[in-house]
Order: sequence, then structure tokens, then C-alpha cells
Amino acid sequence: GRIRFDIRQGFLLTSSSWFVMSGIGALPFLFAPLGLDIADSVFETVSGLTTTGSTVIVGLDRMPRGILLWRGMLQWVGGIGIIVMAIAMLPYLGVGGMQLFRTESSDRSEKIFPRAGQIAFATTAAYLILNVACALLYYFSGMTGFEAIVHAMATLATGGFSTSDSSFGHFTNPATHWIATLFMLLGGLPFVVYIQMAFGRPLAIWQDSQARHFIMGIAVVIVVLTAWLWLTREVAFLDALRLVAFNVVSVVTTTGFASTDYSLWGNFAVIVFFVLTFVGGCTGSTSGAIKILRFELLFGFIWYQIQRLCRPRGVFPLRYRGRPVEFEVMRSAMTFFFLYMATFMALTLALSAIGLDLITASSGAATALGNVGPGLGEIVGPAGTFAPLPDSAKWLLSLGMLLGRLELMTLLVLLVPSFWKK
Amino acid sequence: GRIRFDIRQGFLLTSSSWFVMSGIGALPFLFAPLGLDIADSVFETVSGLTTTGSTVIVGLDRMPRGILLWRGMLQWVGGIGIIVMAIAMLPYLGVGGMQLFRTESSDRSEKIFPRAGQIAFATTAAYLILNVACALLYYFSGMTGFEAIVHAMATLATGGFSTSDSSFGHFTNPATHWIATLFMLLGGLPFVVYIQMAFGRPLAIWQDSQARHFIMGIAVVIVVLTAWLWLTREVAFLDALRLVAFNVVSVVTTTGFASTDYSLWGNFAVIVFFVLTFVGGCTGSTSGAIKILRFELLFGFIWYQIQRLCRPRGVFPLRYRGRPVEFEVMRSAMTFFFLYMATFMALTLALSAIGLDLITASSGAATALGNVGPGLGEIVGPAGTFAPLPDSAKWLLSLGMLLGRLELMTLLVLLVPSFWKK
Repeated sequence: GRIRFDIRQGFLLTSSSWFVMSGIGALPFLFAPLGLDIADSVFETVSGLTTTGSTVIVGLDRMPRGILLWRGMLQWVGGIGIIVMAIAMLPYLGVGGMQLFRTESSDRSEKIFPRAGQIAFATTAAYLILNVACALLYYFSGMTGFEAIVHAMATLATGGFSTSDSSFGHFTNPATHWIATLFMLLGGLPFVVYIQMAFGRPLAIWQDSQARHFIMGIAVVIVVLTAWLWLTREVAFLDALRLVAFNVVSVVTTTGFASTDYSLWGNFAVIVFFVLTFVGGCTGSTSGAIKILRFELLFGFIWYQIQRLCRPRGVFPLRYRGRPVEFEVMRSAMTFFFLYMATFMALTLALSAIGLDLITASSGAATALGNVGPGLGEIVGPAGTFAPLPDSAKWLLSLGMLLGRLELMTLLVLLVPSFWKK
Repeated sequence: GRIRFDIRQGFLLTSSSWFVMSGIGALPFLFAPLGLDIADSVFETVSGLTTTGSTVIVGLDRMPRGILLWRGMLQWVGGIGIIVMAIAMLPYLGVGGMQLFRTESSDRSEKIFPRAGQIAFATTAAYLILNVACALLYYFSGMTGFEAIVHAMATLATGGFSTSDSSFGHFTNPATHWIATLFMLLGGLPFVVYIQMAFGRPLAIWQDSQARHFIMGIAVVIVVLTAWLWLTREVAFLDALRLVAFNVVSVVTTTGFASTDYSLWGNFAVIVFFVLTFVGGCTGSTSGAIKILRFELLFGFIWYQIQRLCRPRGVFPLRYRGRPVEFEVMRSAMTFFFLYMATFMALTLALSAIGLDLITASSGAATALGNVGPGLGEIVGPAGTFAPLPDSAKWLLSLGMLLGRLELMTLLVLLVPSFWKK
């Protein structure tokens, strides 16, 4: 049938375009005299395009500007590519509950922009404007023009590539850190709310349940960790707040900039950061990982089940944003959760079979799959890089980043024999 | 309504009976001159009754026999209590997909024993017979009579309490290890198949899909880890096979005996053991954790979703054991998975806030929730005990063991306000 063919084409087109771009994007790294082999070059490119931000390059501060700009551009292109994919492709492929965002549905945004193409155009405009605003603020807070542009590209894309080995630790002005925190957060919110806000609905950011829950959740984590850092590590309150806000927002939006080595904040903080690696921002943003929409569906689902347990004969329609949720959407989101955990475990096992220790293997797998950037431990932690890992680990992690970015199913479905049957 | 009241009574009765038994069972530990405080005594009792097998007692080899026997009896009672609960209560409470085992359903076992009471009686008989057989074989392989009885009690209950600090490392005869491996495996299979086998269906063990998948899965893990140990650690093949078979079966059946410190087998093996901590045996056995039935439902569910992704207009009935599965059962099993992971994360976070390191906190949470016994790392690993942990950690882990044993929902539902409304 016709529809079946279109869907399969959609899966093939979406997956293969990321692979082709990763191959082409790697050429500058391979041919520049940086001493990177094929595994390194592909890793760095995939990390850029998927807006992960893990790097295998040591000595960024002395790098040729061309390479640093190329890294920023990969993130910039990846960022807008992800939003457009989430608006124009994934809802129709039925991946991970994103059917909710099909434009047939009576979402208000479509009354302004009835077609996916127009939404994509307006989103790109919003992305550009936010990039320019971010770069200007970075510049005024003390960055050079070049640093401001490259970091702005990596900020709105929630990417995390920096021009310095010490990432945002390189910039000492607290204002720079707060600007980054704000724009990383903006990169993790659904871009459609910016269009709605620009077209006469200034409260859209708070009316969108995903954005609201995301902001509220981040606020809770920041309060708890700031109290922890302030009370247990003798850090002055305002410094603690700035450090926690920056690094929590960086990890939960899956950006991956670091302003300090938060792995030294103690076991509790380390586990919080590890858990945040799985959370991610909102669907329709540039961030990765599981994302807020799916947690909303999950909590709704569990609440529904608990109600049924107490009152087996009651009727409890499962609702999201005031409309009933089809079970197909719910099943699709649940499948995503399971595949995410299964892929995480498989990747961790594969990395440990290569010889990586438990912390490096598990946090490396989580950070790749969530497109976050830094892992935990001495090698891939916020103070380290992925350069010392063996090539086989770099290939596995590159695959993990692509799997995460393509919401798993888009890529995994190509492995199912019945996909290829007529 | 009447049904509503009955179900609530069922939840209350099931949960409170475990709490009451834990309180009473702790008295001998508290009043014996062992130097155990209340937290220690409750931890040891809960660990016994839930057939977890984690211990806070150091110096088992010099303990009074009365205490060692009490520990064995707690496990023995806990083991049979779990099977009866899984047959007689949980299916009617609708917890975690166990609705599948309601005796209204046309499961063949009920043709032999039409009532839950009779099944419970026959199961207890099977449990007793296997206990006697196991004790006799232990005795003939070199244990003392007392050791044989206490270890048999802890084996069929998949408990893991030993009479020696070095657990099965104390017994040097390889035959003893193989006997333990066999009976731990038998403790992790659905006890209803033994009744079926006794009543003229000798192939029941292979016809039961849960039992078959469990045995096949264990075989695969044993082959992989034996190859790993043989090839990377220079252990003789037969020794490697024995060590791997014993410790894999011990962890996956959630028994928790150790015949060696498998945490020294390298990163890959350690991660495999960590993952196995979550798996568990079959429903209707004495083992804990997530259990094979739910993985069968999960894989069926994911396969169903993949089919739908490739062929959105196709019809794929979701089947288990040849019969269609109601979505209510599936939803209930999915909820269990999510609650299990959420509880694991919450427990890990709480333990790390107390000050436990990442490995101790996460493996301690996993081993408590799965009723396994040993965790990983120097403190709670197979060579350590839970004695050095602070009291607050012992209380949290005791709660974790009870939550796991009560399949989470049976206990958690009591926290929902609407449960208490008329």
C-alpha cells in the first residue's frame, strides 16, 4: 500500500541523512593536521551533529580557528536539524509517542502556521534570533567575538563544544555563566512556544505543560543541590547557586558545558548528575535523552494504573493537555522507555567488554545515548575527554549518539526483517 | 461496593502480615547477646523473611546454633509464604501483571487442583520434599547434618543465609557446589510445574514458557561468562564452569550464596552480575526481582509495537502462552517495570545522601529490591557484609527488601490517598 511505502521511506531517509552528514562532516577533521584517525574524526563529527558535545580533541585553546568554527557549525546545523526532524518527520513515523504532535491534531500553533513547512521556517527564524542574542550577550560579558559566536552556536543547539579545554571554566565573569544558563535553558524548551509568544501569546511558555514541568523540575533540583553544596562543601551561597544552576541546566538540557568539575561534589551530587543524564529537555527542542513529554505520559500512565488498582470498576480517561490520549501513543512512549534502558545496558556491557571500568562504561553509554557530553569518572568526566578511549569504544559511542538522536526506533526499525518485506 | 472493599482488605492484610512477622522475627536477634541493635535485628529478619540473604552478622562460624537455625527458619517460612502469596493473593489484587494467574483462567494446573487452597497445599508438599532431598544430598557431599539442614532451607527459599562467613566458599567439594546450583535453580522455577510433573506431565518443566526461557537464558549467560573467565583469567575450564554456574544461578535466582568473590572477575563480569540482580526467577517461585514472566510480556509488547511501526494498519494480537493478553495485564506489568526502576533510583539517591559511594549505594539498592543478597564493591560485595553500614542505610534497605518482596504496588498503593477513601 501507499502509506506503508511512505513510512518506510521516511525511516530510511531520516536515518540515512544523519549517516551521510556524519561521513561528510568528518573530512575536515581527518585532513587537518590534528593527528585524528578515522574513529576520532567520525566521533567528533557525530558528537557535533547530534549536539552531544563529547570531544576527543585535547588542546582546544591552541586549535586553528577553522577547526573550532567547524565544530560550532556542526552543532548549529545539528540543532536546527533536530527541531525540524521532530516537527516534520517523527510525528508521522509514530516514534516514541510523538504522534501527539501530528499537525492534524488541533494544537493551537497550527492556527497560526497551518503547515509543517511554515512552522519549520518560523522555528529556524527563532533559532537564528536567539543565536544572535546569545552571541551579543556573550560578547558584552567579556568573550572575544569569535568565542561568542562559536559558544552561542553550541549553546542554543544544546551541544556543548567549547573553544577551551576548560569549557566555561575558562570564563571568569559570573555574568557569562548566567547568560549561558539562560540560553541553554531556552535551547531545551519547545521552540514552538517562541513562535506562539511572538504571535501574541506571551504566556505560552507557562501554558505549555512540558515547558512548565521542565522549569519546575529544574528549579527543584537546583534548590536541593545548592543546599547540598552550600551546607556540605562550604561553598558561598551565591557561588553554589551559580555553579549548580549552570551545571544542572547544562546536563539536563543535554548541552554538556562544564563550569567546574562537579564530580568532586560528593556521591549524592554525582548520582543526581547521573540520573539527570537520562532526563533531557522538551520534545521540539534541540536537547536529547528521554525528554519531558515522555515522563509526563509515564506519570499519567502510572497514576491511571494506581487509580484502577484502587477502583477496578472506575473509569479514568487518560488525558494529556486536556485531551484524551490514545493508547497507541502511550504504548509507543512506553516502548521508547524500554528500548532506551535496554540500549543503555547493551552499550554499557559492550564498553565494559572492551575493558572500560564500570563508571566510565555506564556514564559513557548514558551520556552518548542522551547526547549530553561529559560522563563521570576520571577519563570521560567533566574534567576529562574521550581521547584516551580505544577506537572500538569511540565507534560504539558514535553509534550510541546516533541511536539517541534518532529516538532509537527510527534506526532500530531498519534492523527488523519485516521492515524490508514488501 | 463489595469487591472494592475486598481488594483493599487484601492489600492491607498482605502488607501488614509481612511487617508484623518482621517485628516478631527480630526478637531473638535483639535479645541474644550478639551486640545487634534494633536496626541490625530488623534488617537481618527482613533479609531472612524476604529471602534476600544479606547479613549484618560477622562471625557466623562461631555463632550459637539456635541463631543460625532461626535464620534458616526465617528463610524457609519466607520462601513458602512468597509462593502462597503469589498463588492466592497477588493475582486477585491485580499487581504487576499477575492477573494472568487468576484461577478463573483455563490454566491446566487447575484441572488437577481446582482451588487455590489445594494448590497451596500441594506446593507446600513439593517445597518440603525438595528441602529434604537437598539436605540429604548436601549431607552426603560432606556437610554436617546441621549445615545440610540450614543450607537446604536457605537454598530452596532462594534465600542465601549460610552458616559460614565465607558462604559456599567454606565447602571445598565441587559436588556440594553443583548440588546447590541445581537446587537454587529448582527454587527459581514455578513450583506449579513440580505438581504437574508429579501428576503425569513429566515434560511440564519444558512446556512452561517461563521455565523454558529462564533455563535458556541462564545457559546463555553461563556459556558467555565461562568463556570470559576461562580466556581472560586463566581459570581451568571445568573450574570456570562450576564457579560461573554457581554464582550466576545464585544471583539470577536471587539466592545470593557466593562460592568465590566474583567481583574480581573484571569489569564485564561485574556489570553482568549487576544486570542479573534485576532479572530474578519465575513468578510462582521463591525468587524475587522483576522475574521472567514480566520480561516475556515486555518482549512481546515491544515486538508488537515494532510490527505496528512497520505495518500501521496490520492486526497483531498480543499473545502469551497461546492466549490473547488483555491490555490491562500488559499495562499492569509495564507499571511494575517503571515503579521498579523509579524505586531503585530513589533508594540509590537516598543511600548516597547518607554518604554511601556510588557502587555501594546502587548495588545495595538493587540487591535489596531484588531480594538477592550480595551487592558489589568492598563493603556489600560478595566478600563483605552489610554490618558496616549506618543504621539509617539499614532501615532504608529493609524497606527496599519489603517493597521488592511485596511486588512494590502491594505496599505503595497504601500511600495513595484515594485508597483510603470510602
